[in-house]
Amino acid sequence: MATTPHPVVEYTSPASWAMIEDKFSPFAKETLAKLIKFFEARACPDEEIQPAIKVAHAQLPTDPSLRWKTVIPVIEELKVKAKKLGLWNLFLSKAHYPEHGVPLTNLEYAVMAEILGRGGHMAPQAVNCSAPDTGNMEVLARYGSPEQQKKWLIPLLNGEIRSAFAMTERFVASSDATNIRTSIRREGDEIVINGHKWWISGAGDPRTKLHIVMGKSDPNSKNTYNQQSVVLVPADTPGVTVVRPMSVMGYDDAPEGHCEIIYENVRVPLGNLVLGWGKGFEIIQGRLGPGRIHHCMRSIGAAQQALDTMLRRVTDPGRKTFGKFLHEHGTVIADIAKSRAEIESARLLVLSAALQIDKFQAKGALKEIGIAKFVVPSMALGVIDRAMQAFGAEGLSQDQELASAGPA
Amino acid sequence: MATTPHPVVEYTSPASWAMIEDKFSPFAKETLAKLIKFFEARACPDEEIQPAIKVAHAQLPTDPSLRWKTVIPVIEELKVKAKKLGLWNLFLSKAHYPEHGVPLTNLEYAVMAEILGRGGHMAPQAVNCSAPDTGNMEVLARYGSPEQQKKWLIPLLNGEIRSAFAMTERFVASSDATNIRTSIRREGDEIVINGHKWWISGAGDPRTKLHIVMGKSDPNSKNTYNQQSVVLVPADTPGVTVVRPMSVMGYDDAPEGHCEIIYENVRVPLGNLVLGWGKGFEIIQGRLGPGRIHHCMRSIGAAQQALDTMLRRVTDPGRKTFGKFLHEHGTVIADIAKSRAEIESARLLVLSAALQIDKFQAKGALKEIGIAKFVVPSMALGVIDRAMQAFGAEGLSQDQELASAGPA
Amino acid sequence: MATTPHPVVEYTSPASWAMIEDKFSPFAKETLAKLIKFFEARACPDEEIQPAIKVAHAQLPTDPSLRWKTVIPVIEELKVKAKKLGLWNLFLSKAHYPEHGVPLTNLEYAVMAEILGRGGHMAPQAVNCSAPDTGNMEVLARYGSPEQQKKWLIPLLNGEIRSAFAMTERFVASSDATNIRTSIRREGDEIVINGHKWWISGAGDPRTKLHIVMGKSDPNSKNTYNQQSVVLVPADTPGVTVVRPMSVMGYDDAPEGHCEIIYENVRVPLGNLVLGWGKGFEIIQGRLGPGRIHHCMRSIGAAQQALDTMLRRVTDPGRKTFGKFLHEHGTVIADIAKSRAEIESARLLVLSAALQIDKFQAKGALKEIGIAKFVVPSMALGVIDRAMQAFGAEGLSQDQELASAGPA
Amino acid sequence: MATTPHPVVEYTSPASWAMIEDKFSPFAKETLAKLIKFFEARACPDEEIQPAIKVAHAQLPTDPSLRWKTVIPVIEELKVKAKKLGLWNLFLSKAHYPEHGVPLTNLEYAVMAEILGRGGHMAPQAVNCSAPDTGNMEVLARYGSPEQQKKWLIPLLNGEIRSAFAMTERFVASSDATNIRTSIRREGDEIVINGHKWWISGAGDPRTKLHIVMGKSDPNSKNTYNQQSVVLVPADTPGVTVVRPMSVMGYDDAPEGHCEIIYENVRVPLGNLVLGWGKGFEIIQGRLGPGRIHHCMRSIGAAQQALDTMLRRVTDPGRKTFGKFLHEHGTVIADIAKSRAEIESARLLVLSAALQIDKFQAKGALKEIGIAKFVVPSMALGVIDRAMQAFGAEGLSQDQELASAGPA
Repeated sequence: MATTPHPVVEYTSPASWAMIEDKFSPFAKETLAKLIKFFEARACPDEEIQPAIKVAHAQLPTDPSLRWKTVIPVIEELKVKAKKLGLWNLFLSKAHYPEHGVPLTNLEYAVMAEILGRGGHMAPQAVNCSAPDTGNMEVLARYGSPEQQKKWLIPLLNGEIRSAFAMTERFVASSDATNIRTSIRREGDEIVINGHKWWISGAGDPRTKLHIVMGKSDPNSKNTYNQQSVVLVPADTPGVTVVRPMSVMGYDDAPEGHCEIIYENVRVPLGNLVLGWGKGFEIIQGRLGPGRIHHCMRSIGAAQQALDTMLRRVTDPGRKTFGKFLHEHGTVIADIAKSRAEIESARLLVLSAALQIDKFQAKGALKEIGIAKFVVPSMALGVIDRAMQAFGAEGLSQDQELASAGPA
Repeated sequence: MATTPHPVVEYTSPASWAMIEDKFSPFAKETLAKLIKFFEARACPDEEIQPAIKVAHAQLPTDPSLRWKTVIPVIEELKVKAKKLGLWNLFLSKAHYPEHGVPLTNLEYAVMAEILGRGGHMAPQAVNCSAPDTGNMEVLARYGSPEQQKKWLIPLLNGEIRSAFAMTERFVASSDATNIRTSIRREGDEIVINGHKWWISGAGDPRTKLHIVMGKSDPNSKNTYNQQSVVLVPADTPGVTVVRPMSVMGYDDAPEGHCEIIYENVRVPLGNLVLGWGKGFEIIQGRLGPGRIHHCMRSIGAAQQALDTMLRRVTDPGRKTFGKFLHEHGTVIADIAKSRAEIESARLLVLSAALQIDKFQAKGALKEIGIAKFVVPSMALGVIDRAMQAFGAEGLSQDQELASAGPA
Repeated sequence: MATTPHPVVEYTSPASWAMIEDKFSPFAKETLAKLIKFFEARACPDEEIQPAIKVAHAQLPTDPSLRWKTVIPVIEELKVKAKKLGLWNLFLSKAHYPEHGVPLTNLEYAVMAEILGRGGHMAPQAVNCSAPDTGNMEVLARYGSPEQQKKWLIPLLNGEIRSAFAMTERFVASSDATNIRTSIRREGDEIVINGHKWWISGAGDPRTKLHIVMGKSDPNSKNTYNQQSVVLVPADTPGVTVVRPMSVMGYDDAPEGHCEIIYENVRVPLGNLVLGWGKGFEIIQGRLGPGRIHHCMRSIGAAQQALDTMLRRVTDPGRKTFGKFLHEHGTVIADIAKSRAEIESARLLVLSAALQIDKFQAKGALKEIGIAKFVVPSMALGVIDRAMQAFGAEGLSQDQELASAGPA
Repeated sequence: MATTPHPVVEYTSPASWAMIEDKFSPFAKETLAKLIKFFEARACPDEEIQPAIKVAHAQLPTDPSLRWKTVIPVIEELKVKAKKLGLWNLFLSKAHYPEHGVPLTNLEYAVMAEILGRGGHMAPQAVNCSAPDTGNMEVLARYGSPEQQKKWLIPLLNGEIRSAFAMTERFVASSDATNIRTSIRREGDEIVINGHKWWISGAGDPRTKLHIVMGKSDPNSKNTYNQQSVVLVPADTPGVTVVRPMSVMGYDDAPEGHCEIIYENVRVPLGNLVLGWGKGFEIIQGRLGPGRIHHCMRSIGAAQQALDTMLRRVTDPGRKTFGKFLHEHGTVIADIAKSRAEIESARLLVLSAALQIDKFQAKGALKEIGIAKFVVPSMALGVIDRAMQAFGAEGLSQDQELASAGPA
């Protein structure tokens, strides 16, 4: 108690840190401290010293024809520095991926994911922990053949390329995966793919070289969980057409985007099949658990960032309405109390789910993952909405990160 | 009861129509029927026959440098037709504006405003009932000098030009109007204006020729309600700089926009003062009441449109998840019931507030207007959000009007 | 507009009254004014002059063995006065019940029901408009034979006896009426009833002389809506056992109560069958519509009464916490605004549903009745809860009517 | 992982237990297991083997004149057994109370408090962990003189007597403690007390022998935190009048009750002053922290109990409405998911607050205690309300514990 608290208590909360501190290895604590220092120097919440994010926004063209061809220079610079510092691929747990992984548990990484979530889309990229690459690397590390790993996993682990995961489909209620219609069939030594996907994140990025495509290889199989297969498709394969980026509440999220894609008679070698015929469902199940926790923790980071932004606003000595400072209005105080309580309880929920994954794998933590997924997005939306209210119209505008924040 | 019901019952609800039908003049009923027919032919909710809105979207360039220079042809065509049909300036009540007004009460127009709200930004423009022009025309009709009316009101009434109302300011808590800082002072035969405004709707539109600017002419007056004056500023006056459009949750709302504007030593003749020195507060008070009711009714139209869209989705025989059609899920049914109840109660509230304005002027209906303003926006957001949920990710995208819908 | 407003605007709201005033007959307006005067003199919301309700509470014994044997004297006195004033059976619309009805529409009575709802259980009794007697009188007036009407309807209309409606059953999901199990069968000239009911309101009252019992007379009928019949059972028939009163959130609601009843080989003459064999479903359908509107309006009265009570509390100059009067706390203001908006919108909803019933019968107003039933109870609970908060612990206690208020 | 999980995972949740298990001493784990066994045998949630609570209810007379004179026999029997098992005074942490305490941390006891909260008012009494005795024993153990401890603390620790804490006052906004008006003044060798208190829990119990009374001894002191003193008043001192029990939402909570009390010229010896003149505020501050955590955890137990009850109901194969079992209705599933998430997040919040108290005392955990107090009561009410809905009217009645459950 006499010792200096770990710097993470400034970013998470003393009470939640006290619950988990003794579960952190010395390596994890050190890495976390290093990540915070790196984050603060480049992407700290204070507006004066958060230059990288601002620079990144400025480096992205507004012209729709250029937005999708841009590699943002400042992010690439950050990646070089992060790799040197050992802040790289932190999501990939050595316990599950001995060869390529980092000695961090899911719980330990979860706390780091919250920090990363404070920096929007950019911070996770800086340390090569961006979705959908993270889940894709897990798929390749767990199920990929040595050739597949050499060709795709290594460049992904090095941050040299990016990737997309093509599952959801247009005209199909694809939240129920058994509805998927994309056809994957063998023709001699080749696999032929035909399908119409959309909301494929990352597919717009010029660095994206690989699509991991899920489809039905045996649609008539009686076991609905054996109908699907997963195939690796280089992004430049003939027949792959990125139709358009989908916009999300008005945002195109360039350059990654969430794209509509048509696969028309796309042909890849047999060796591009992952794991085996009919193994598609097994692959996506393994992919989703930890990814959801990462996503939840990043959303919590976004929410905490929004609350911190709100707190700076309502304590701004220059803002007085109807004779009171903003933080003197009872409804503002109530909003802050509510946001604080919601963030803290969501954080504890997700951290406990991460711990369950460490103990019992994703399969043994389905209930906890389900609760996290149910609670966090609406919590984050509520917190961010209250922060926007404190800014008035400015909160909805491009001058604040709030309108584009949220469960990223 | 044996007679055919008025076609409005398809757009509003039988129960609310029964409450107000006997308060409608024959002229109002006819006009309403005509408006519905016109709206159906050009902007009906059915996707196949709503071509005008789709055309308008297609006619608006995506290139940021062109979006603000465009007059959308299809809207101008609609305006010509609407004027011929007598569907024009319906918002301007003859009771209050005998010279230029239309013989419709606030209550009668309120029902029409709901219909117009179903057509996004375009439908109100088609019949020259768009904010902020509506409020600006009211200001000019009530407080303008004959010269001011001739120069600005007539072209606005004719739909030849558009206008902006410059009140809210950057760096100022301007929801409390006494905080306004823009300076308006006399220098000889001229008025000199200096100020920094933002969120000035319509200021981006190439058709906008007039800014009605509010500022402080006597900041030291003991009576805080005599400090403000209102001045007419032609949009092309030297010193007027439209800095940028503000984006609202990612949307720029081109070509109208909500702009940041700097007025730097802007000089206009003394004759451009509206009503008199120190009359600014009086002017904006009179301006706000009916406008808020119109805005609320348009929002209710947007909400009803979203619910109708949702109903078409959940009864789509092609959408089945987890073995059930969407409309068979209990949570979907509960969402529909909630939306229906919320829309209907908001509608009755706003209609009753409109009736109060008809009876007691806006001043005598402050409480009812306040309740409407408090209830409607969050109602509309809730209804639209539930509709989006029914569409999954598609609901957030450019393929549905939902993400850009809402209290317009 | 120059005329004095009707006194009802003090009890309902000017805005909703303006929507419906022109639909009220002179008789209805007079009766409403008379009712308000009677209510004010005996049961006004001001604590000093609401003696009758306080007296009634004092006249009800606390001893469980006496509570169910008591006829509260002050209520009987009020009934005598009300009958003299013509404030009697106001719920029974002459349009539907020419012989016994009062010339009031559903809409007209709905406004009166709100006033009555401000006086808890007592006020409706004072004017012979208490559930379940109201619905039961409607059943007898519409479907009863001349003998049945003479024996039961007349004393009910005179307020000489009370009655119960025995539908819901123990051990059965009886919100789905097709699940009902009580057996009603013919044996010679008699009808034999066996069943186990509960939540039978009014069955505990010593004045209750009649049970209207619903059961299955033809459980094997293919048409599930022809299986039920309704029979009149004198309360003192051998085999009728009132087992116990059910308590509702801790309240026994003596002396009426909501009782558990066993009917064991209860025998009544054939002439006690209502309308005909297999007509049970038809009877209860006709019974429910207007009753739900009355119930909703009484709940709105209870909510408005709670809000008025809250307003008196928060403007009490003696209550100051943390340096502020209660009405100066932003959260209190927000609570009041929310309650005001919710009450007003619920009121307009229910009034418009009442008008639909007047126009199209209950059958033609199912959607509107459904919305009213969905919205009002949770609205009332929310409003009453906020009022309780303003009182602190006192709000939960026997010193305020709030804990026992609510959808009565 | 191969070991058998601690039985507490059936009562709390695996995920929250995993977060804290390593913070439990072997003694705490053993005691917890013993408590569960004792609780299961006597007060398990299954209706067949929860005889003690049912017996207790049956042993409490309904006659108002007897309810306040009754010592419920079955509770006294349970106390004897619990003491033998060492399940006694578990709330009193040895770390803070070396002489009388039990070697349990706040965190360790918090988990036990949740178990106790499942058994309503009775379970905490059975192990001598009932409010307000717990807080009163803490006051006496921390601030009491040796004589005061001998006379009052020892019998309380032995469960021989009960006690009340008299702080809140009638006619006073006493949530702000500086408003307190009760006068405590010295007259020679005596202290004279005059005041009017209400909501004094436990004061109705025939076993209550001590009132710990807070009042103002120096109302004019400039330091508002030095104005108060605390005095021990034997319940039978002349001048102490228990006026009446206050009812809470219709419940009298006999025999403990929450009473209105008048202290009129009550005289006690000087030695009954606790800690010193002007120390009242300090005493109540120390009293509140851990007590709030205990209260929160008991409320969580009540909520979890309600959810378990709901789960049994909705999986009851005998309940089918509109063709579906209750657990097949989407809205029921959504209710369960929401309740589960809310309980689990509240549990983690409160456990983390308990850990903060262990680390930094109540003073160092004010923020965490504040969040717990803010979140838990409304969570519990929401969960219990949803459980009631699943039971229909039965859920509101005396046949289920739900109506009387809630933050106890």
